[in-house]
Amino acid sequence: MIIILKPEIDQQELENLMTWLRNMGLEIHMSEGANTTIMGLVGDTSTVDINLLRALDCVADVKRIQEPFKKANRKFHPQDSVITLSSSDDKGNSFEAKIGGGHFMTIAGPCSVESPEQISAIAAAVKSSGAQALRGGAFKPRTSPYAFQGMQAEGIELLQEARKATGLPIVTEIMDLNQLDYFDDVDVIQVGARNMQNFVLLRELGKIRKPILLKRGFAATIEELLMSAEYLMAGGNEQVILCERGVRTFEPLTRNTLDLSAIPIIKELSHLPVVVDPSHATGVARYVRPMSLAAVAAGADGLLIEVHNSPKTALCDGQQSITPEEFDRLAKDIDAMRIAIGQCNS
Amino acid sequence: MIIILKPEIDQQELENLMTWLRNMGLEIHMSEGANTTIMGLVGDTSTVDINLLRALDCVADVKRIQEPFKKANRKFHPQDSVITLSSSDDKGNSFEAKIGGGHFMTIAGPCSVESPEQISAIAAAVKSSGAQALRGGAFKPRTSPYAFQGMQAEGIELLQEARKATGLPIVTEIMDLNQLDYFDDVDVIQVGARNMQNFVLLRELGKIRKPILLKRGFAATIEELLMSAEYLMAGGNEQVILCERGVRTFEPLTRNTLDLSAIPIIKELSHLPVVVDPSHATGVARYVRPMSLAAVAAGADGLLIEVHNSPKTALCDGQQSITPEEFDRLAKDIDAMRIAIGQCNS
Amino acid sequence: MIIILKPEIDQQELENLMTWLRNMGLEIHMSEGANTTIMGLVGDTSTVDINLLRALDCVADVKRIQEPFKKANRKFHPQDSVITLSSSDDKGNSFEAKIGGGHFMTIAGPCSVESPEQISAIAAAVKSSGAQALRGGAFKPRTSPYAFQGMQAEGIELLQEARKATGLPIVTEIMDLNQLDYFDDVDVIQVGARNMQNFVLLRELGKIRKPILLKRGFAATIEELLMSAEYLMAGGNEQVILCERGVRTFEPLTRNTLDLSAIPIIKELSHLPVVVDPSHATGVARYVRPMSLAAVAAGADGLLIEVHNSPKTALCDGQQSITPEEFDRLAKDIDAMRIAIGQCNS
Amino acid sequence: MIIILKPEIDQQELENLMTWLRNMGLEIHMSEGANTTIMGLVGDTSTVDINLLRALDCVADVKRIQEPFKKANRKFHPQDSVITLSSSDDKGNSFEAKIGGGHFMTIAGPCSVESPEQISAIAAAVKSSGAQALRGGAFKPRTSPYAFQGMQAEGIELLQEARKATGLPIVTEIMDLNQLDYFDDVDVIQVGARNMQNFVLLRELGKIRKPILLKRGFAATIEELLMSAEYLMAGGNEQVILCERGVRTFEPLTRNTLDLSAIPIIKELSHLPVVVDPSHATGVARYVRPMSLAAVAAGADGLLIEVHNSPKTALCDGQQSITPEEFDRLAKDIDAMRIAIGQCNS
Repeated sequence: MIIILKPEIDQQELENLMTWLRNMGLEIHMSEGANTTIMGLVGDTSTVDINLLRALDCVADVKRIQEPFKKANRKFHPQDSVITLSSSDDKGNSFEAKIGGGHFMTIAGPCSVESPEQISAIAAAVKSSGAQALRGGAFKPRTSPYAFQGMQAEGIELLQEARKATGLPIVTEIMDLNQLDYFDDVDVIQVGARNMQNFVLLRELGKIRKPILLKRGFAATIEELLMSAEYLMAGGNEQVILCERGVRTFEPLTRNTLDLSAIPIIKELSHLPVVVDPSHATGVARYVRPMSLAAVAAGADGLLIEVHNSPKTALCDGQQSITPEEFDRLAKDIDAMRIAIGQCNS
Repeated sequence: MIIILKPEIDQQELENLMTWLRNMGLEIHMSEGANTTIMGLVGDTSTVDINLLRALDCVADVKRIQEPFKKANRKFHPQDSVITLSSSDDKGNSFEAKIGGGHFMTIAGPCSVESPEQISAIAAAVKSSGAQALRGGAFKPRTSPYAFQGMQAEGIELLQEARKATGLPIVTEIMDLNQLDYFDDVDVIQVGARNMQNFVLLRELGKIRKPILLKRGFAATIEELLMSAEYLMAGGNEQVILCERGVRTFEPLTRNTLDLSAIPIIKELSHLPVVVDPSHATGVARYVRPMSLAAVAAGADGLLIEVHNSPKTALCDGQQSITPEEFDRLAKDIDAMRIAIGQCNS
Repeated sequence: MIIILKPEIDQQELENLMTWLRNMGLEIHMSEGANTTIMGLVGDTSTVDINLLRALDCVADVKRIQEPFKKANRKFHPQDSVITLSSSDDKGNSFEAKIGGGHFMTIAGPCSVESPEQISAIAAAVKSSGAQALRGGAFKPRTSPYAFQGMQAEGIELLQEARKATGLPIVTEIMDLNQLDYFDDVDVIQVGARNMQNFVLLRELGKIRKPILLKRGFAATIEELLMSAEYLMAGGNEQVILCERGVRTFEPLTRNTLDLSAIPIIKELSHLPVVVDPSHATGVARYVRPMSLAAVAAGADGLLIEVHNSPKTALCDGQQSITPEEFDRLAKDIDAMRIAIGQCNS
Repeated sequence: MIIILKPEIDQQELENLMTWLRNMGLEIHMSEGANTTIMGLVGDTSTVDINLLRALDCVADVKRIQEPFKKANRKFHPQDSVITLSSSDDKGNSFEAKIGGGHFMTIAGPCSVESPEQISAIAAAVKSSGAQALRGGAFKPRTSPYAFQGMQAEGIELLQEARKATGLPIVTEIMDLNQLDYFDDVDVIQVGARNMQNFVLLRELGKIRKPILLKRGFAATIEELLMSAEYLMAGGNEQVILCERGVRTFEPLTRNTLDLSAIPIIKELSHLPVVVDPSHATGVARYVRPMSLAAVAAGADGLLIEVHNSPKTALCDGQQSITPEEFDRLAKDIDAMRIAIGQCNS
């Protein structure tokens, strides 16, 4: 951390500042110029409140050199994190799916769980196309209080039924801590974009030992996403999967603008696996395929894809879902793309 | 709502669609052109899922004509809503402050409650300068898990002490439903920008009968803010105060970009009062004054201003707080500005 | 400027770098820590290419301390710049209008010059309401090649006629250097938002001695606006008026989001006068009034307001124009607001 | 185009409007509801001024159904446009490179032309790695008036020398119409992001018969990019190559946010080829490779890649350039990716 001091500076205030910084265990290096004096702070600055320093009378500016996240930081954990999902079907077969460190995971399923028939049909279809996990919304964040809010607890039960039939581990979104009991037998808990900075929720989810799929808020910086992962990890839960799902810009032809450059940046800064959700990012089914392939080419560890057996009558977000047939072809092409990108990276 | 149909259209599918729409109580007006057929829907379209329609094979596009919010809509509630805060001090004096319909409210106080001395000194100071309510953070949303998270329940008690001493009603932020019990004796519950779309929280707060100060998310559209107000109001809680606190843009010299044109737009679309928070929007104490005056001139019903008796040592966000002396002068100038704007609007 | 060096660093490369920096007349202050070595550069760093430094193998990051603009910088020119427009009518009366340093200027007129009757009627009206300058588009930047492109040279002649009749100095936009001859007898040359970084145009306009009204690009940072002013001033033209006209965000209810916090920031960083264009920023006539008053309250030195005598049939942008009657009332209220803000600042 | 009329409407004004619309050759379809009357306009609405309609007293809103661009529109030109570059070296060998309709083009070279040695070395290197065209900046748009502005006319001569040696057609940027003479013997004229809405320049370039590479402005919508292409094509120049190079967002870790979903959208809306510039978009050399592969996977027709033989001493933008060795490997991997994406699309 670097503190740039103001030109004319009260000596007593400076000494107070230096004492305070040294008491935090930081080493100070002064660099005095004709117009500007600079203080370099060496040590663990992740707990220093940068705004507090900026408010001091003697300080012109403060610049951070080190990232403010530690457990999510690749510097302190150079190898890729690998997260394993284990599940079994009702015939006693066991399944295992991994993500990270070269393992790729396709998570597919409907936006919302709507009926036993719907979820079981889609689960069977995406399983046979090679998906490794099943997604489906039970608790649904909806902009309008008058819109369908999901099947809630019943939806989670239907996902569990679908897991029994197919062996696919299930991924579904929690909206509030009070719903936590319903997630006891869920394999991956999703934290939605709107909850990325619900710090109370993150802190509690940091106490459990189950993979969390953390979606980037649609106006969150990459650093903020990693700070939210840090909340989960600070509590001891190291099974965090990050998800890029688009950021809000002025462009009206897509719901959000998918930020694929976030992939190589996240993989550089952090050891955590990162998946891409092209369905929510674009909001348009026919852009899911090119954006899925692009995400793989950019280095994503997985994809989160909406599949619906009858998009025309889906109760929500049907517009952005692809059909099982489209998914089947896409899954094959993702494999081909992974081979190509593997060759590129070999 | 207008549905633009695709050029070549299956007659059976069209009839299904028309039946489905009529079953929702909507009247249909067809307009057939050479290349485009347009369906005008007349009736209450606020519950129609626009994305579902867009996903239909026969539909090219759907455009909404009516706003999707009702209780927050000025069309159905032409007069300004007025919200009254009542409180009393420990000498038995009663106080009343109103906002909306020409009543202006200045809410001032520290970013965080830090100590009995701090909050009582600031409360006394802002009261004597004319503030009508006291703000102060007890539960603090912080980007870093390692940063000070607020005095929590104890902070609320200190605010209540300050209310006893000054009679100022208190405004403080809730971060999670589990904290709700602590807010029993809080006058206005603030929902922060990061929770603007925490729909479970909004739904529960809609069930209580206490004013809610709802901050605009930093990437939320004005319509989304009003839809979140609609969540509160759909539950029967009509005491909603909206707050503009800046949106995220590419400009790095302010924390966020204060969107003052939101004020006349909100007042046109809705009957709810709207306040501006120049402290969080800009993040810089010396811009609080010009932005406060500009907010009043733009027609805001109130201001939310951070005041700290020792900004240099504030435990959070000191950089954006002004001193009690600066607030005193600003409060006088807000009065002068209100007279001017009143003359302008007379 | 601060250079943060990488942990393990080639000594020879470091010496080459230091020699190169010293040859640029910079003094170097080293600050060595356990993990990071920092180089503080003292001297005129405005010509140092920050990207070149960042590309060096031994450099981890570079941070600028000083602003990269000089002539536009308030540090080197603490007093407000005042710009004077002089004109005369055909009866031989002389007029003078000033902007900056406490002088306020309202520039009003139609989006486009459309006919002799239109421009002379509007000019007379805004003059009688107290406007100090007349604006009107002759060369029009239009998104569509099929739209009306302005009356061009003839439009400038009509503006000159209107000046003769009223004495109002005229402000009109140049779109390309090849049009420069037509601007010989124009009082203020406007550079539009889309041309803010047309550096060839700026360089040429820097060679003439006539006030330039420079509009902020709708995705330009404040620093970039000041760097474009620097282009003009580097050529010796110190008569630059800056204009805030909204930035592009995700909010669809206004054409752009007016960034009023830019006003106090620009006035802090620069000595140049700054005006606000609420008409183009919002794109909606009924928001022009509140945003005009807010701009004055925020400290703007002037306003650029579209006025049309028959907005319904304006050939362009009629939606955002106010009528002469609305302008008359607004002009009075701007005066009242200026008195209020003057009292606030006294 | 759909006009939504206000509830209570003056019959005379309505008739005037209908007459005016019919005089423009448009057919009118009325749809009257209880609260809203809707007018559907059928015919060529691309020349109708939407803002003029919105300003009418009787109009509540206007919504466009058809795109406002025609020559760039795939609807009226279903097949992909293919653009051919022909060149020859000084040994009399002829070369031909195509882009669009399945033909892929890699354009590579330094940010700026710096010296005969530099450009000839890079040209030879990228040629041997398989690039089909050479890029290099001669006239450089620079934010600071004090920065290196390019070798200008001399830079173009050096590019021509490099073409003689390698046979690679050359691509370089024009900044102003006054430079047009220097571009007589340039193969592709680049219009930079800052000039995307320099309509005078576009109109003139529409008169020549030479391919134009048009970069998307960093705050331009996709529709605006296509409207700028329409400016070129309206003049008769149909050889337009579009370029996505990132949009401005709040994310600070990349210079801009590359919008790869623009690729499938542009290819859906238009028949013009589209290339991606990952170097300028990200501003970081090590992200060029993953973003290049992702662009190919998303369906781009080509890439524009900065290559420098000594990035550490490049006179501009060295940070974002890759080395010839990195380019050589990337070019091979782009080929592998193209085969994969071809298989995916077969």
